Amino acid sequence: RDESDEKGGCKSLHALQVERQEQAARSVLINCQSRTREKTLLKYLSSHGDIKNYFFYESDDLYAVVEFAKRENVASLLEGAIIPSGSHESAVPFKSRLLTLRNLHTAKSPNQQSGQQCQVQTAFPITELIKNLSREDSIDQQITSLTETYQLTEENTRLRFLVCSLLNDITAAYFPECTIKPFGSSVNGFGKLGCDLDMFLDLDGISGWNVKTPKSGLFLEYQMKQASSARAVTQNILYVIGECVDQFGPGCTRVLKILNARIPLVRFSHKPSGFQCDLTANNRVAMKSTELLYLYGELDPRVRGLVFTVRCWARTQGITSGMPGAWITNFSLTVMVLFFLQKRSPPIIPTLDHLRDLAGPADKCVIEGNDCTFVSDFSKIQLQSNTETLEQLLREFFEFYGTFQFSKMSLSIRKGQEMNKPEMGPLHIENPFETSLNVSKNVNTSQLDRFVALCQESSWLLQQSETNKPKVNEDSYNVLPWGLATLLLPSQVATINTRKK
Amino acid sequence: RDESDEKGGCKSLHALQVERQEQAARSVLINCQSRTREKTLLKYLSSHGDIKNYFFYESDDLYAVVEFAKRENVASLLEGAIIPSGSHESAVPFKSRLLTLRNLHTAKSPNQQSGQQCQVQTAFPITELIKNLSREDSIDQQITSLTETYQLTEENTRLRFLVCSLLNDITAAYFPECTIKPFGSSVNGFGKLGCDLDMFLDLDGISGWNVKTPKSGLFLEYQMKQASSARAVTQNILYVIGECVDQFGPGCTRVLKILNARIPLVRFSHKPSGFQCDLTANNRVAMKSTELLYLYGELDPRVRGLVFTVRCWARTQGITSGMPGAWITNFSLTVMVLFFLQKRSPPIIPTLDHLRDLAGPADKCVIEGNDCTFVSDFSKIQLQSNTETLEQLLREFFEFYGTFQFSKMSLSIRKGQEMNKPEMGPLHIENPFETSLNVSKNVNTSQLDRFVALCQESSWLLQQSETNKPKVNEDSYNVLPWGLATLLLPSQVATINTRKK
Ligand SMILES: Nc1nc2c(ncn2[C@@H]2O[C@H](COP(=O)(O)OP(=O)(O)OP(=O)(O)O)[C@@H](O)[C@H]2O)c(=O)[nH]1
Ligand SMILES: Nc1nc2c(ncn2[C@@H]2O[C@H](COP(=O)(O)OP(=O)(O)OP(=O)(O)O)[C@@H](O)[C@H]2O)c(=O)[nH]1
Ligand SMILES: [Mg+2]
Ligand SMILES: [Mg+2]
Repeated sequence: RDESDEKGGCKSLHALQVERQEQAARSVLINCQSRTREKTLLKYLSSHGDIKNYFFYESDDLYAVVEFAKRENVASLLEGAIIPSGSHESAVPFKSRLLTLRNLHTAKSPNQQSGQQCQVQTAFPITELIKNLSREDSIDQQITSLTETYQLTEENTRLRFLVCSLLNDITAAYFPECTIKPFGSSVNGFGKLGCDLDMFLDLDGISGWNVKTPKSGLFLEYQMKQASSARAVTQNILYVIGECVDQFGPGCTRVLKILNARIPLVRFSHKPSGFQCDLTANNRVAMKSTELLYLYGELDPRVRGLVFTVRCWARTQGITSGMPGAWITNFSLTVMVLFFLQKRSPPIIPTLDHLRDLAGPADKCVIEGNDCTFVSDFSKIQLQSNTETLEQLLREFFEFYGTFQFSKMSLSIRKGQEMNKPEMGPLHIENPFETSLNVSKNVNTSQLDRFVALCQESSWLLQQSETNKPKVNEDSYNVLPWGLATLLLPSQVATINTRKK
Repeated sequence: RDESDEKGGCKSLHALQVERQEQAARSVLINCQSRTREKTLLKYLSSHGDIKNYFFYESDDLYAVVEFAKRENVASLLEGAIIPSGSHESAVPFKSRLLTLRNLHTAKSPNQQSGQQCQVQTAFPITELIKNLSREDSIDQQITSLTETYQLTEENTRLRFLVCSLLNDITAAYFPECTIKPFGSSVNGFGKLGCDLDMFLDLDGISGWNVKTPKSGLFLEYQMKQASSARAVTQNILYVIGECVDQFGPGCTRVLKILNARIPLVRFSHKPSGFQCDLTANNRVAMKSTELLYLYGELDPRVRGLVFTVRCWARTQGITSGMPGAWITNFSLTVMVLFFLQKRSPPIIPTLDHLRDLAGPADKCVIEGNDCTFVSDFSKIQLQSNTETLEQLLREFFEFYGTFQFSKMSLSIRKGQEMNKPEMGPLHIENPFETSLNVSKNVNTSQLDRFVALCQESSWLLQQSETNKPKVNEDSYNVLPWGLATLLLPSQVATINTRKK
């Protein structure tokens, strides 16, 4: 619907997705356990078509992502591929673009193992990060460095779209007009290396077409199985796709069907990429919030810097967690940062209501009664000239939430203002598009208290003069933590708080 | 493998299947509940391409099978079809070639219901058959008439291939090189209207290709999920297909996955055709026995006549049953008829060993260690000149099995001779291709005894002179049963036998 391309220097997320999807459809994933020389491999692959791009990475094995110039090249490559020979009797003969390279020469020359430069696909260890940050000259530089270290690389993004594309081959079998799109932190600009891969199967590709009944005469209707509700349809489809992934999907393991959740999903591990995958269906509101977060991240570089820093800080301090529970989620945390940036004076980013007011007719979007309209043309957005530095903003962030009236007020990025809390949960963050919902409904008082206490502690730490200057040492490899790095060290708050209870 | 076309006037079953499959792929199934005038419907459909053939039939509703000249015509027709409007939120958006015709004019002119001539798809009631047979002039004519009444019609055969083709669309999604083929009585020439539809998914389309490992250098292998055995692969695939059929398959109801059977299968009802369907996978031996039965049926018209008559007689007398159990199966019964015909002097049909000896190099076929080779070129088969009439053969059949030494001997159509029984089951009929197996292992003594007693009774009945002449009556609509018809009347044996026990 929003086909807006490059505008004001920024591509809309939708345009970007289309481009990446097309790229992924021309790519294959190759297990290179045979450790063939790079040149030899490329020569072999090139016989099927021009290679536009490729890279190697290591997970459970050595892999290569190879992008061909054309889809036909991939088809040609697959045509020459064989069924695993030894064990083909017990192989499920489902053919995908996940291949294994075999090299009958390896035995003769086992010393070819060197060569490939591998692209790292996992997050940097926190201790290393602390060391690296401490070598920077300013807190601003520390924040930039953290962002650059953690953000998804070009290669990781390609790999994410490729995994979606591989899964798409499974679903397209039954729903050819549908696509699998990544959403959430894989594409919203706030993803950290190693974050999960959220995907959704957009069934509207089908049901949006030809729904109108002709006004007169004869017409044909597809005969279709009826479920008891739209939700039941989603559950049934995810159930079957879950089974397919489980039984046929190469490299897909630990498949879980979580169909009774508010948003039913299929969760699985994609071994060759190392991604933890969550597949949902008909989850269009989540796609819209992803687009919104992406837009905010593109408006001002300080947005991403602050979000990355706060997310990293929160994870290190155990405010967020990899497991579901009463923890604050990364999504809630991001909305909190956005809200904080709207509250600056002058504001660094506009309110969602303002973005809606800027929307053109083509941007109109209502999903299940919720108005999800906002502007897609970035050039229409006029920013105010706030000149605060990242360091200032980080300080203010901790100050802001260290003293926020959570007991009375809720956060709304739609209004860019705190509102009276409609219900009594400890933390209330208005869902931007389904405004009657609270995105942090799961958070309990003790988790909120920890968050507040840690904000206060961090705010205090950043006020100490010795925290704030680089600690240079003779031994430049054993620098002492300073600035942002000190915030990532184990805090006292956890213990204090547990004792208080 | 055996691409042998028309030879000696007979098409091989394989050639026939290929032709029918291609025809089915160009066909659609339309629910015509709106009862549009035939002309109007045809005009509407013709706008998408030339119609090569069509017919109407009634099951739970009025349906039309429409064969277009080209596959593109079907694609064009589908492109114009819409998603069910009212309830599309809860419809599983899987698009198939099963469509419903809607007519917005129907309300205005509800009297268009007439017109279409419907092709009957179900078996004639037995009481009607008895009346009709009794009007014939000879037992030979009775047998021919019974065969013509019960055998599958051209339309029913088309419908069977179409249902396979619709199911093929579901499986081709994941296994594009595979096809679903009907086997058993749907295509072996001995099918009766209303018989079940046995289908098998031939996965060899995939695994037969590119299995050879290149001799040297680099090559790519598909990464595939491994199961514990070939049987487990079949079970997994049937499991997933069963789920797909259950959740997505329009018109498919009462889906049962019977995966622990010797031959794992998915059973379901296809409502629009009324067929009870059994889907198996990698069941190539059954396809071979189907081809063999087909060949025998084509060799001499008396084969089909006798098989139909014996099957109908057995069903009427409760020797065979629609339910699984200790009953003799139709397949066993057919093998018994074939064996009997091999024992004539001179034999009416050759032994399977002889058919194997006539085979050319292209006919060679070994499945899981079993030699399933036999000649595919019908013209190589020289028949001996036996001139017995159908009436004589039917008499002799009952005489033969009424006095057969079932306790000591087994039946082998491979040798065309009784053999010493290798094991102690009441009835031993050698499986033609897996000769260590007994196709009638399920049969118990009491069922065999009933069969023998009924053979004796029928043999006796056919010897009575009054049975053997047409009983003409003034009232030609109330003829008295005679000849074959008397064998289809309730017998005394059932009660005698139950009393004996
Ligand atoms: N409306 C709403 N959307 C949510 C909520 N939680 C998650 N989402 C959406 O779903 C996306 C994926 O969820 P997550 O995987 O939990 O979060 P994420 O943004 O991907 O961040 P990670 O923790 O890096 O995975 C988010 O980006 C949101 O767009 C929620 O509570 N309410
Ligand atoms: N080898 C072997 N094949 C069998 C056996 N039972 C069935 N088959 C094969 O499977 C096919 C289908 O089985 P059925 O549906 O039971 O029999 P049918 O010949 O189709 O006859 P109907 O009763 O009309 O369905 C048969 O035609 C045989 O080719 C058996 O016990 N052994
Ligand atoms: Mg995520
Ligand atoms: Mg059958």
